[in-house]
Amino acid sequence: MSGFVSLVGAGPGDPDLLTGRALDRLGRADLVLNDALVRDELVRLAPKAKRFYVGKRAGRHSIDQDGIHTLMIRAARRGERVVRLKCGDPFVFGRGGEEALALRAAGVEFEIVPGLSSAIAGPALAGIPVTHRGLASGFVVVSGHAESAYAPILGSLAAGAATVVVLMGLGRRVELAAFLIARGWAASTPAAIVLGASHPGASAWTGPLASLGEPDIGERSEPGGVGATAASPLGRGRSPRGIDSELPGLLVIGEVVSLADVIAHQEAGSAHVVTRS
Amino acid sequence: MSGFVSLVGAGPGDPDLLTGRALDRLGRADLVLNDALVRDELVRLAPKAKRFYVGKRAGRHSIDQDGIHTLMIRAARRGERVVRLKCGDPFVFGRGGEEALALRAAGVEFEIVPGLSSAIAGPALAGIPVTHRGLASGFVVVSGHAESAYAPILGSLAAGAATVVVLMGLGRRVELAAFLIARGWAASTPAAIVLGASHPGASAWTGPLASLGEPDIGERSEPGGVGATAASPLGRGRSPRGIDSELPGLLVIGEVVSLADVIAHQEAGSAHVVTRS
Repeated sequence: MSGFVSLVGAGPGDPDLLTGRALDRLGRADLVLNDALVRDELVRLAPKAKRFYVGKRAGRHSIDQDGIHTLMIRAARRGERVVRLKCGDPFVFGRGGEEALALRAAGVEFEIVPGLSSAIAGPALAGIPVTHRGLASGFVVVSGHAESAYAPILGSLAAGAATVVVLMGLGRRVELAAFLIARGWAASTPAAIVLGASHPGASAWTGPLASLGEPDIGERSEPGGVGATAASPLGRGRSPRGIDSELPGLLVIGEVVSLADVIAHQEAGSAHVVTRS
Repeated sequence: MSGFVSLVGAGPGDPDLLTGRALDRLGRADLVLNDALVRDELVRLAPKAKRFYVGKRAGRHSIDQDGIHTLMIRAARRGERVVRLKCGDPFVFGRGGEEALALRAAGVEFEIVPGLSSAIAGPALAGIPVTHRGLASGFVVVSGHAESAYAPILGSLAAGAATVVVLMGLGRRVELAAFLIARGWAASTPAAIVLGASHPGASAWTGPLASLGEPDIGERSEPGGVGATAASPLGRGRSPRGIDSELPGLLVIGEVVSLADVIAHQEAGSAHVVTRS
């Protein structure tokens, strides 16, 4: 019997936001390889699987990318059903492409199971539509972990032309705001920080682009970290109780952010919005 | 008892790609308002609901946007649980923002249930990662229904700086390719047409940007149509049998498309890829 690998997107965090296909693959998995930000309750949906944590946390790699490939390939060759469980979607900054290429090169059968990317679902759960008639006819998604990652894209985009969503950029949000303002974006452009969308304790801050550095989101200062973690909630008077120490976070910049205060809802898993007065 | 509206993303089409939350809301719905491209088998997941088709098809509106708002608001005020079921994600060209604002203005409680956007899941199911180390550090999503929708974004973006995903742009793909080439994109930039990802009969074509107009995808010629429909499959020798007459389609442009031939998989719901020789 030959094994099989499913590269599965876990969505933003809440098990309720997994797809039926992801649930099915977890239920039948012999081995789950999961990332740092994947919650335990998702991994528990694979009752008969061995679990192997392959995440990166604050720059400390528990295993390198080649090691992940080797683990998947070996398990598949033993005939196991492997689920490689990734936050969000496997093909949005998830190195899913690299893993698919490694599996193909090894002759291992695999599939891609798309997941809800926090690039879209994160803003949505904070009441921000990435497109909106009259405000944004498109959106741009970049990684904010280094200027070299976003500069070629955001450096050319006309100021205000599209909604900008930045993943892994909380730690560089001051530089990022300055970068955009230097390229003609209005300092008053509405901007948001969305933390832990769909996680317990989700929160969001909205305010002008120029003030993006103001809220204390308690991020860690370790260099080399993924930069998308937070140890405390946003805003005034919110207690850190219930806030996970490593909630994923993202930035949204553009006129659509102005809708958050109106659209934001208080249902399960949506983000509490704090607006800068 | 007061009603409640869920603005639900149905994902790209396969019921297997619905989230658990979407399934739950359908199961409890009293009324489902669904778009043109939402498949009947999804609507059947709401067994006790009345169904109301509010889609647009080839420019023929069955009901206008204000009419949709009125239907939702009236039903909620009668105490019904309403599901507004949209293809993909409600906030990606789905007018979900407008509907949320209308519900808020009417004092009707609502929630957003994000869905898999075909902007990411469509390419993924054709074996195309929208980001990939060394090839694309970000992606841009635009609507291709009119030049005025994409020109402000794609007109400024540096050639080749990011993966470009175009929804609702099949009908303008020749103009779009010319637009990009005129702005410095190489005529040889890998490009893809992905039709009906996750639907039975899904298919994809890949080839150089300059050849984007070559494949006959049998699109309708009615002016004013959504422009994202196809009546026949792509490529050589593929039979139209099993192809829905109104499969949603999208374009992907960028170096990541070159990975499709390697990564593309033949699992359920993934797209068959035809590569231009």
